[in-house]
Amino acid sequence: MSTTNRHWNLASRPKDLITPEVLQLSESPLPELEDGQARARVKYLSIDPTMRVWMADIPQYMPPVQIGEVMRAFGIAEIIESRHPDFKKGDKVTGLTGLQEYALITGKDTRKFQKLPSIPFLSDVNFLGTLGINGLTAYFGLLEVGRPQSGETLVVSAAAGATGSIAGQIGKIQGCRVVGIAGSDEKCRWIKDDLGFDHAINYKHPDWKTQLAAATPNGIDIDFENVGGEIMQAVLDRMNLHGRVVLCGLISGYTKQDPALASFGQVLIKRLRVEGFIILDYVAKFMDAGKQLGMWKMMGKLKDKQTIVKGLEKAPEAINMLFAGANTGKLIVEL
Amino acid sequence: MSTTNRHWNLASRPKDLITPEVLQLSESPLPELEDGQARARVKYLSIDPTMRVWMADIPQYMPPVQIGEVMRAFGIAEIIESRHPDFKKGDKVTGLTGLQEYALITGKDTRKFQKLPSIPFLSDVNFLGTLGINGLTAYFGLLEVGRPQSGETLVVSAAAGATGSIAGQIGKIQGCRVVGIAGSDEKCRWIKDDLGFDHAINYKHPDWKTQLAAATPNGIDIDFENVGGEIMQAVLDRMNLHGRVVLCGLISGYTKQDPALASFGQVLIKRLRVEGFIILDYVAKFMDAGKQLGMWKMMGKLKDKQTIVKGLEKAPEAINMLFAGANTGKLIVEL
Repeated sequence: MSTTNRHWNLASRPKDLITPEVLQLSESPLPELEDGQARARVKYLSIDPTMRVWMADIPQYMPPVQIGEVMRAFGIAEIIESRHPDFKKGDKVTGLTGLQEYALITGKDTRKFQKLPSIPFLSDVNFLGTLGINGLTAYFGLLEVGRPQSGETLVVSAAAGATGSIAGQIGKIQGCRVVGIAGSDEKCRWIKDDLGFDHAINYKHPDWKTQLAAATPNGIDIDFENVGGEIMQAVLDRMNLHGRVVLCGLISGYTKQDPALASFGQVLIKRLRVEGFIILDYVAKFMDAGKQLGMWKMMGKLKDKQTIVKGLEKAPEAINMLFAGANTGKLIVEL
Repeated sequence: MSTTNRHWNLASRPKDLITPEVLQLSESPLPELEDGQARARVKYLSIDPTMRVWMADIPQYMPPVQIGEVMRAFGIAEIIESRHPDFKKGDKVTGLTGLQEYALITGKDTRKFQKLPSIPFLSDVNFLGTLGINGLTAYFGLLEVGRPQSGETLVVSAAAGATGSIAGQIGKIQGCRVVGIAGSDEKCRWIKDDLGFDHAINYKHPDWKTQLAAATPNGIDIDFENVGGEIMQAVLDRMNLHGRVVLCGLISGYTKQDPALASFGQVLIKRLRVEGFIILDYVAKFMDAGKQLGMWKMMGKLKDKQTIVKGLEKAPEAINMLFAGANTGKLIVEL
């Protein structure tokens, strides 16, 4: 058995891609196990887009990895030595092993590790993908946020990725028409021929937006969004009224600073709900609302002000006043 | 009584602001009334940011105004002549009068016009603002989309505008801490001193973002967004987890073509729901989901693929592969 551990540490924060200055491989002696600790040898490491986010010193859903720390990563490992009551030699575990050869499991962070069940037909690597973070992400993202109805059209971007490929298949199970967007003809063949997507579109083809339109003749009801940027915009352009966007990832923006993506980054990280809103959808309730507003107004709880412009001939100027912020309260043309 | 009608027609589509080429004033003889028609003299015209959207030939929530048509506008008018069973001379009506002196009400578009009730303490112009489109927009947008809870922090942009000023006051009625963003010190004084907002911030002051931070020490739970762009971004940066953005308007983008605003334009017009999503919020349901995923996997309903990279030393390259789209399915480093 080795007496040293090789580990990738975060040496500096990346500007775009991962360069040799960002992650540095070093070797350290394995510490003696103390009571309550177990040591696991890492067998598989999950490589996920979110790792790029963890490296950046920006507000995010977990603390960013600190400079000098072992890089965070999910993995599957086997217990090789244990003084921990919950784990014995030979157990397979999954959790945040870190980007290294050996993970030390201590009492207090046991929650980071779960024993792998042994299930026929399932291999260990399935617990990093289909039954792990990606499968769970596809499952909850599509079912709880996207709320698909049978017959609806679902578009999945990064559809040949670990999460997108599962999201599309769950969409099929739910009875949706599923269109995947991916970056090569080979990926497109895989999701269409092997996974059963109804259509697959290679966004590197010059006419991919035309193909997207042809593949979604009834528009798009749900966007399971993994990419952001131009791809997301093309999907938004074809969304139906009251559609839902599951904002799961924005990989096109992780390696650059794009202000157009910054807003959606906040929406994603903070799990915000952004809803477009136009009063026309509430016509049936206008009477009740009007009564309540009138009551508040008469009780003095609602105050207002008018900015009055006199004369029909001033109407165009009045419209421009709105954009110059020249009105306070309601802007009205009086004839 | 006049025998002619003056009306503003859409002559060309605006590039940014309304210029003399965009709206043209002309005069036409008033037509004879036919059976089932009524004529109303317009008294007040509502000037709304959405008029700029109606002028643009873009997908939107109503058909855009066509070149040559009388410009669409809400107004209040008085019936001066009627051969319509529902309206008699002297009735006051509100509806889409158009940007003109006289509106012709015909049988089939009666739904566009409603008689104004006569209510003590309420003046006609209140039915264009507080009790009209703006009040209803504030009411449904905040209550149905924003779903405020007592004690939450609500930020309203364009807070001294017709809709924002009501939205903030309804927020106060609901027990929220309400912060308004407006474009002059005078507007700020009005919303704070007269309308009872807790804080008012003039975004033209250089340190307004610092003021916003000071006014929202517990972050922001609801953004009633009327502006978009830089103001929206500053608010998003201070949103709390699971906050809500009522996307009611994007006035900063109506007079320019800003790709950063294009996405939110689609969200607004189509009333999309965009939700950020991170799997951590569903930890309590992981077990059940895992069982379902495992079942689907064993039934052959979920297929997957791994792209395996061998050797811990390849981990940084593997991370970069994600951004180059070099993997199909789950990307894993095998040790």
